Amino acid sequence: MAANLKISPLKPMSDFQDWARTVALEMEHALESLLPAANTEPARLHDAMRYATLGGGKRVRAMLAFAAGLVSGADPKRIKIVAAAVEMIHAYSLAHDDLPSMDNDVLRRGKPTCHVEFDEATALLAGDALQALAFELMATHRLAESTETQVRMQQLFARACGSHGMAGGQAIDLANVGKQITLPELEFMHILKTGALIRASVLLGADCGKPLGDAEIAHLDRYGKLVGLAFQVVDDILDCESNTEKLGKTAGKDQDANKPTYVSLMGLMPARKFAAELLGDALDAVAGFGENALRLRQLAKFIVERQH
Amino acid sequence: MAANLKISPLKPMSDFQDWARTVALEMEHALESLLPAANTEPARLHDAMRYATLGGGKRVRAMLAFAAGLVSGADPKRIKIVAAAVEMIHAYSLAHDDLPSMDNDVLRRGKPTCHVEFDEATALLAGDALQALAFELMATHRLAESTETQVRMQQLFARACGSHGMAGGQAIDLANVGKQITLPELEFMHILKTGALIRASVLLGADCGKPLGDAEIAHLDRYGKLVGLAFQVVDDILDCESNTEKLGKTAGKDQDANKPTYVSLMGLMPARKFAAELLGDALDAVAGFGENALRLRQLAKFIVERQH
Repeated sequence: MAANLKISPLKPMSDFQDWARTVALEMEHALESLLPAANTEPARLHDAMRYATLGGGKRVRAMLAFAAGLVSGADPKRIKIVAAAVEMIHAYSLAHDDLPSMDNDVLRRGKPTCHVEFDEATALLAGDALQALAFELMATHRLAESTETQVRMQQLFARACGSHGMAGGQAIDLANVGKQITLPELEFMHILKTGALIRASVLLGADCGKPLGDAEIAHLDRYGKLVGLAFQVVDDILDCESNTEKLGKTAGKDQDANKPTYVSLMGLMPARKFAAELLGDALDAVAGFGENALRLRQLAKFIVERQH
Repeated sequence: MAANLKISPLKPMSDFQDWARTVALEMEHALESLLPAANTEPARLHDAMRYATLGGGKRVRAMLAFAAGLVSGADPKRIKIVAAAVEMIHAYSLAHDDLPSMDNDVLRRGKPTCHVEFDEATALLAGDALQALAFELMATHRLAESTETQVRMQQLFARACGSHGMAGGQAIDLANVGKQITLPELEFMHILKTGALIRASVLLGADCGKPLGDAEIAHLDRYGKLVGLAFQVVDDILDCESNTEKLGKTAGKDQDANKPTYVSLMGLMPARKFAAELLGDALDAVAGFGENALRLRQLAKFIVERQH
């Protein structure tokens, strides 16, 4: 499990934190310039799109794209577009998820949710327009050596967003409220709901660089799947343990909403152990990439050890 | 204005009706097979996606794609994918538009709206997943001679759906409720709300065939813009004149909702005259294509003369 650590010892996490801060800052600038200006018509919609996307968020998906791009030597200018598209999809999903007919939440990233700050119709349309803009970005900028690769990236991306990906996972999540479900059912839901976009972030970041072999892509996909699951297990642990101020979103809401979680199905300690196992397996999955996977390994560690 | 009628007299409209019926039927089959099966997980979401898309609608956008494809000699198999993508976007926009936080409508195509038949969260997610599926289709199937053209088509398509297209138009439409607006403001809203996707239908259908020159594309774009506007003017006339049974959706709702329309701003007779002028200009725009534009001309006529 820890074989990779011998090949390439983790540098101090302070180095990772510098890198993460730089990526987050560059992403913020990229998103600012890629989103429509707030003073262009329809101004209120554009304002809401910017509100939903900018000024917060851990940018984990963007970091995954950048970290995976290091494996294939990708041009950061390309990764930035892919990462912005993924972050826009993530932001749209939160704006829709927080709506009264869905999770009915009022706090997100320490701010009022989009429909509270604007109104329900505007939050709905801002989400719709963010999804379209993400696909527009993926078609407007050159992202890969060949346009064939670019079209394949678009297909992977769209599939991760749809009913076999994120939107499907949200539908299953809602259907699970108040139900007794099994761990495999919970896992299936999360592999779609958060996992699909996280896996896509990793693969799309790598696709921006030199073409990888099937085995290498399979390793990255496995890493993405494991990190996506670990992310969710840790989310459930934090939702149970933390408080609203620290999280920047309503804490304990899964329990209040009677939603099954890893903590409710496994218990707190087994959930922690499971997260640690997923981390180990994720590190193993990218061991073969050596130094090039340093950021991927650090990111996996960060995702599992984060406090909010 | 009627110069083109001399070059190529319209065949009897019964011939057009046969063609339109065939296109609508083939589209229904194409959509049935392109949408996820209702018995695959998440089944309720897939059921709602099918409900929102199948079994109704005039398929005007699909017909426009097919009619424009005749101008460039496009392969109907390609046009079918483009038309399905456009119809999915249209269906998603209706599912979201009918939600309580938007137009709050209960009847669509003679059936309960998606959120009435299912629930609000499911209608929201079905719309989200339909948008993603439309983009997935545009990346999964070969649509043009070169992948460069295909990527350009995806860009045009995404832009037509987003804040500078359909979603932006809907935001302006909502902002206009109860307001005194001018005719140019009403036109700007409609050029985005319904016009953008209608123009995209025409251009994408043509893009499936042999490359056209800039002037030819400009003619088709002008046709699409005029037909899109005419479609909306006639919608406003029908909303004012017709009854709910005939329309299959709630009649008189614009007036009830205090929404500005061509009828409320111009009066009924001037609105009818305006629609006839737009038709004449649309016919003029495609006069240069001769026989190849027969279906485009018949469609424009159908759009303006329809009774529901």
